Amino acid sequence: MGSLTDIGVSAGINILSALGFLLAFAVLRIQPINDRVYFPKWYLKGTRSSPRHLGTVISKFVNADMSTYIRFLNWMPAALRMPEPELIEHAGLDSAVYVRIYLLGLKIFVPIALLAFAVLVPVNWTSGTLENEKGLSYDQIDKLSISNLGKGSKRFWAHIAMCYVFTFWVFFVLFHEYKVVTTMRLRFLANQNRRPDQYTVLVRNVPPDPDETVSEHVEHFFAVNHCDHYLSHQIVYNANHLSGLVEKKKGLQNWLIYYENKHAKNPAKKPTMKTGLWGLWGQRVDAIEYYKKEIEELCKQEDEERQKVITDPNSIMPAAFVSFKTRWGAAVCAQTQQTSNPTVWLTEWAPEPRDVYWANLAIPYVELSVRRLIIAVSFFFLTFFFMVPIAIVQSLANLDDIEKVLPFLKPIIERNSLRPVIQGFLPGIVLKIFLILLPTILMAMSKIEGHTSLSGLDRKTATKYYVFLFVNVFLGSVITGTAFQQLDNFIHQSANKIPEVVGESIPMKATFFMTYIMVDGWAGVAAEVLRLKPLVIFHIKNAFLVRTEHDREQAMDPGSLDFYNTEPRLQLYFLLGLVYAVVTPMLLPFIIVFFSLAYLVFRHQIINVYNQQYESGAQFWPDVHMRLIIALMVSQILLLGLLSTQEAEKSTIALLPLPVLSLWFHYVCKGRFEPAFVKFPLQDAMVKDTLERANDPTLNLRDYLKGAYVHPVFQKNDIYELVTIDEEEKNPLVVTKRQSRMTTPGGSKFNSSSGTNEGEFSRIPPP
Amino acid sequence: MGSLTDIGVSAGINILSALGFLLAFAVLRIQPINDRVYFPKWYLKGTRSSPRHLGTVISKFVNADMSTYIRFLNWMPAALRMPEPELIEHAGLDSAVYVRIYLLGLKIFVPIALLAFAVLVPVNWTSGTLENEKGLSYDQIDKLSISNLGKGSKRFWAHIAMCYVFTFWVFFVLFHEYKVVTTMRLRFLANQNRRPDQYTVLVRNVPPDPDETVSEHVEHFFAVNHCDHYLSHQIVYNANHLSGLVEKKKGLQNWLIYYENKHAKNPAKKPTMKTGLWGLWGQRVDAIEYYKKEIEELCKQEDEERQKVITDPNSIMPAAFVSFKTRWGAAVCAQTQQTSNPTVWLTEWAPEPRDVYWANLAIPYVELSVRRLIIAVSFFFLTFFFMVPIAIVQSLANLDDIEKVLPFLKPIIERNSLRPVIQGFLPGIVLKIFLILLPTILMAMSKIEGHTSLSGLDRKTATKYYVFLFVNVFLGSVITGTAFQQLDNFIHQSANKIPEVVGESIPMKATFFMTYIMVDGWAGVAAEVLRLKPLVIFHIKNAFLVRTEHDREQAMDPGSLDFYNTEPRLQLYFLLGLVYAVVTPMLLPFIIVFFSLAYLVFRHQIINVYNQQYESGAQFWPDVHMRLIIALMVSQILLLGLLSTQEAEKSTIALLPLPVLSLWFHYVCKGRFEPAFVKFPLQDAMVKDTLERANDPTLNLRDYLKGAYVHPVFQKNDIYELVTIDEEEKNPLVVTKRQSRMTTPGGSKFNSSSGTNEGEFSRIPPP
Repeated sequence: MGSLTDIGVSAGINILSALGFLLAFAVLRIQPINDRVYFPKWYLKGTRSSPRHLGTVISKFVNADMSTYIRFLNWMPAALRMPEPELIEHAGLDSAVYVRIYLLGLKIFVPIALLAFAVLVPVNWTSGTLENEKGLSYDQIDKLSISNLGKGSKRFWAHIAMCYVFTFWVFFVLFHEYKVVTTMRLRFLANQNRRPDQYTVLVRNVPPDPDETVSEHVEHFFAVNHCDHYLSHQIVYNANHLSGLVEKKKGLQNWLIYYENKHAKNPAKKPTMKTGLWGLWGQRVDAIEYYKKEIEELCKQEDEERQKVITDPNSIMPAAFVSFKTRWGAAVCAQTQQTSNPTVWLTEWAPEPRDVYWANLAIPYVELSVRRLIIAVSFFFLTFFFMVPIAIVQSLANLDDIEKVLPFLKPIIERNSLRPVIQGFLPGIVLKIFLILLPTILMAMSKIEGHTSLSGLDRKTATKYYVFLFVNVFLGSVITGTAFQQLDNFIHQSANKIPEVVGESIPMKATFFMTYIMVDGWAGVAAEVLRLKPLVIFHIKNAFLVRTEHDREQAMDPGSLDFYNTEPRLQLYFLLGLVYAVVTPMLLPFIIVFFSLAYLVFRHQIINVYNQQYESGAQFWPDVHMRLIIALMVSQILLLGLLSTQEAEKSTIALLPLPVLSLWFHYVCKGRFEPAFVKFPLQDAMVKDTLERANDPTLNLRDYLKGAYVHPVFQKNDIYELVTIDEEEKNPLVVTKRQSRMTTPGGSKFNSSSGTNEGEFSRIPPP
Repeated sequence: MGSLTDIGVSAGINILSALGFLLAFAVLRIQPINDRVYFPKWYLKGTRSSPRHLGTVISKFVNADMSTYIRFLNWMPAALRMPEPELIEHAGLDSAVYVRIYLLGLKIFVPIALLAFAVLVPVNWTSGTLENEKGLSYDQIDKLSISNLGKGSKRFWAHIAMCYVFTFWVFFVLFHEYKVVTTMRLRFLANQNRRPDQYTVLVRNVPPDPDETVSEHVEHFFAVNHCDHYLSHQIVYNANHLSGLVEKKKGLQNWLIYYENKHAKNPAKKPTMKTGLWGLWGQRVDAIEYYKKEIEELCKQEDEERQKVITDPNSIMPAAFVSFKTRWGAAVCAQTQQTSNPTVWLTEWAPEPRDVYWANLAIPYVELSVRRLIIAVSFFFLTFFFMVPIAIVQSLANLDDIEKVLPFLKPIIERNSLRPVIQGFLPGIVLKIFLILLPTILMAMSKIEGHTSLSGLDRKTATKYYVFLFVNVFLGSVITGTAFQQLDNFIHQSANKIPEVVGESIPMKATFFMTYIMVDGWAGVAAEVLRLKPLVIFHIKNAFLVRTEHDREQAMDPGSLDFYNTEPRLQLYFLLGLVYAVVTPMLLPFIIVFFSLAYLVFRHQIINVYNQQYESGAQFWPDVHMRLIIALMVSQILLLGLLSTQEAEKSTIALLPLPVLSLWFHYVCKGRFEPAFVKFPLQDAMVKDTLERANDPTLNLRDYLKGAYVHPVFQKNDIYELVTIDEEEKNPLVVTKRQSRMTTPGGSKFNSSSGTNEGEFSRIPPP
């Protein structure tokens, strides 16, 4: 338990560091040289050109207009100014709904905090149990928490009543939000222009046929069973090796450009290099010549491989994208079972072309279930045995205990100025280092599980990450953090007393979680807006690889909202807020500050920076909702456990209906709203089909769909890009303040793991 | 714990009573007067006529042919003789698959028993721990069980290895059986003749429309959204009151017939009756006159009500049966979502007309979820607080304890002859009385939950009943039965030690469950074949209500396999078998005897007696499979708990993968087979449509479907009956030994709660 001073110092440090980040951001973002780091989204939209074309040499790199420095926090109101419909148009529904989660946090916790401070804090404060008991070390924060109530106190009824009020408030907000998001999704889908995925179904596990090729088999099957609706299909090639070659060529090309640039700057000296490992040894050769030859070689290999993939029947995967004449036909095929054997001819609505995860399209059914078993077991071990190192390091993070174990450190720790610093930072940082490594591992596990779309991978990884955070960060911190104090109690208790044990420890961990919120939340969000890593990478690329404006576009990395990484962490704050709302309301202001800051920052980021890899139409919302319900139920069960240790049996029984009600509420919401995120109503499809027939009776759909679902390495023209432009021409963006010059048509970022041919198509001059 | 002698005596009693039932059955069934009780199925099929038409007066009632008495067990081989395909044709797929569950029991337990007796029994017997320890009262049966191994014995490895072997054997058998049943279902559906439900979808929650009636709204909606496929629809009327009237009229008619018969026998005396409550007081009137008047009155009321229901828009429910031009169109509509609001226009494949539960068709979505919450909570209370009376009565069932508490009973209990009798019967009978009351309550709960088909009600009730039996009979017997011995241990242990506590008690309860199997299983099945209740009711009706052959048909009650009542009880034997397979293999022979006897009896019953109310095509199998997996996992977890109390930690860890594997196996089976029971493959629909177009190009489907889904009280002609006859004409039954005279066309038994008009249409002479 840290003292109030510790918290104060920690808060000071974190506020200062957050302010530092924000200040650095304010300064860096108005430098023209960083423009492509902080406003890439507008470049991709084609509505912003490089400010470096204008003015003097110095003003190309450094902003000399002092007035802009005074208004350095201007971006905050600017981030709020764009109305939501425009935001959806600009950044996509996924992003717009994502920032609503932060807003949801405010909607839930601001009223709860007000009520808790009005009712619970006075009730706790005036109790005075801690003051009367001797030999207990307690703190001012504990006096405001439920710990200040004595065992069997009648005042617990206030907490129980508040728990009911909070629960119903959360129900109300969640139901309303689910309704709004569902409406947004349906409106978004209804307003979408024609897109290839509306007509297309992904078919997997095409059974082998001795007499027909996969292509013929697919055609015959759908021509028979969907005779009025089948239009065409696109075979899936196994091009994983080919995309590896493409990726490699791109790397070599970068090196070639680097050496050519070097040569151009210093024409007298021919750049040379060594051919061995990492250029450290081997024969010294002319670098430009060498790379030109290598690239030529690779081009030849690539062409051969391309031919091989197209002609070799073994590289055709038993999967296909089947297109229908109408959206109605596709909706029917996606939702129905095709044959009596449910493990073949599996149909699902095709993801957007850019959302497809190509490498997983051909996994047979049996292999899939084995993979899932293996991943489930390894995830279990990862989750539960990862706790051991955390427990060891974190238990060291209690300075008093460290002193006892290692008395020779005493002089260092006891120095007044240093102590609060270490105490404030240590536990949070230990966790943080673990957590940075994790999402990538979990994403790899999800890929092994065999999901076929990037959005699906994101959602599954987010679930895993949430479970991990819940067990290790939340439960792990609560239980092992107190292990030094309560070890004796623990050994003699059985495992199902977890609600009681955890509930009892909860009030004591309030200060730890306050620190955690400040380090991970406040400072983390402020660091997010600074974009330190993309800033550095951009400037390195800019220095070595950039010759033309086009190269600069390549160097620009807008990044995207990593749903699988950010959402589960954000859910942790909901969990903390709900758990502590009744127990230690003092924690709530910290959470409210986090949600406000994060809402501002992420709204700014999705407007100016991020470029989403795909658009799933907020398909993640059911997951978000479910995790909120889990947090709510956990908070109720822990309060139940806590009260049952306080000799308040009657009150425990009074809380029992709450988890049941929460579960029921979950099922009601699921039944009422979830189908809108999973299924495809025929009525809507029919309406759009009818409208289209009326508006565009001469449409050649076959031509339109041709090539839409070709593996990216085979695409000569970027169909998706054309579609985007098409859409923009029809629905011109509402006028923005920024100047339009159309240098950069929105280059979509294809599935990164299977490589892209951006290098090829982005050199085509825009129409 | 009963001793070996107790078990022996109990076995003797139960074998004798079972034999008594079988003997009584053998004698009764060959009496011509009982022919309609023991062979009603053949009457309904029209292939058996009353043997009472032939021969002398005496031989009409009593069988005088002595040779038939000698062959009194003849029915057993006869029950086995009918091959399965013929059985499916004769009794339906539901029944044929149902008896396969008993066969499955034999397939699982015969090899397991052989292996257990070959390996585990010697291992246990030679251990001799119980002999060496003093002060322990043990029994010969305990010497054969796992209790005979000392703590930390190395011999536990034999049990663990066997647990693995048994588990994989169960996996193999279950997978194979699921596959066979799936194939049977698919073949059955594919071979079915044209039936109205193949073209029809049940639409619920039709949203109200201010301008249109429900009928118009349904027509417009489907004509637009399924424009190529929509054919017609049938509105659902709220005829619950009307069917009440019909039901009442039928009762009055029975009384009229009774009095008319009375008068016919004794023409001199006019029968009179009192009009008051139960005919006990009130004015004395001429009974025949009175009932004639009453029936006339009721007919008038009925006609008025009929008119009112048809004309009053308020009696039209927001539900409809929508028919399509093709099976393909119906399959599509049943599997897809219609609008973006998933709580209206809910479509599901229509149940067979006779399977519809009419009263539940109009429950709105929100009400449904509230009803489910209420039922879930009340079911919870029913399950867990029902244990209190059982615990009290059962704990009394331990004679030694009764002696201690009530010493004055000692002289009675100590009488050698009486003691084993009480000990053997008491606990089983206590349970039995509770259990008889229960299924009806649970069925009522399922009806409140709002399921729309009788088959669905059966399945949901079976699930509830299984949960109840598991908690109360299985867990309840294991834990509370030993409460007198282990109360001290229990109080000081926490609730999550249940696997350990239950596991530890399991070996000690073996004798109790052996008794239970004999009373509930052996004797129960033997009583089943005797049909005591229908026998008595038939003879009462026969004496008072029967004038013509037709009346006799009415009096005949074939009954049906009550899936919701029999299947969960049968699952209990699987659970006991799997739990005791490793612990006390001595229990297995008792279970094998039960399954053999039950297989014989139920095969005989479905061939000769039962007439199913509906045909769901073995849709219950996924539930059966899941409960078997649950039993398997429970057995593994309890063995784990048992071993962990035996100081065999390593072996406990060795068992941990088993529950995980079982769960995974469940999901594999679910993914592989379950869709065949839930969804409707388009390919199969398309094949049948194509065949039909070729075979019967002039079919007028609209005429065919007209009236198929009219509420039974409105039906003038029994469409279903016509279909059955139609099918039989096309596929004449394979020649049976019984003589065909077609007196009784198969009267289908409509939804009993909403009344039937059997009385009306069965008087129409057969075509």
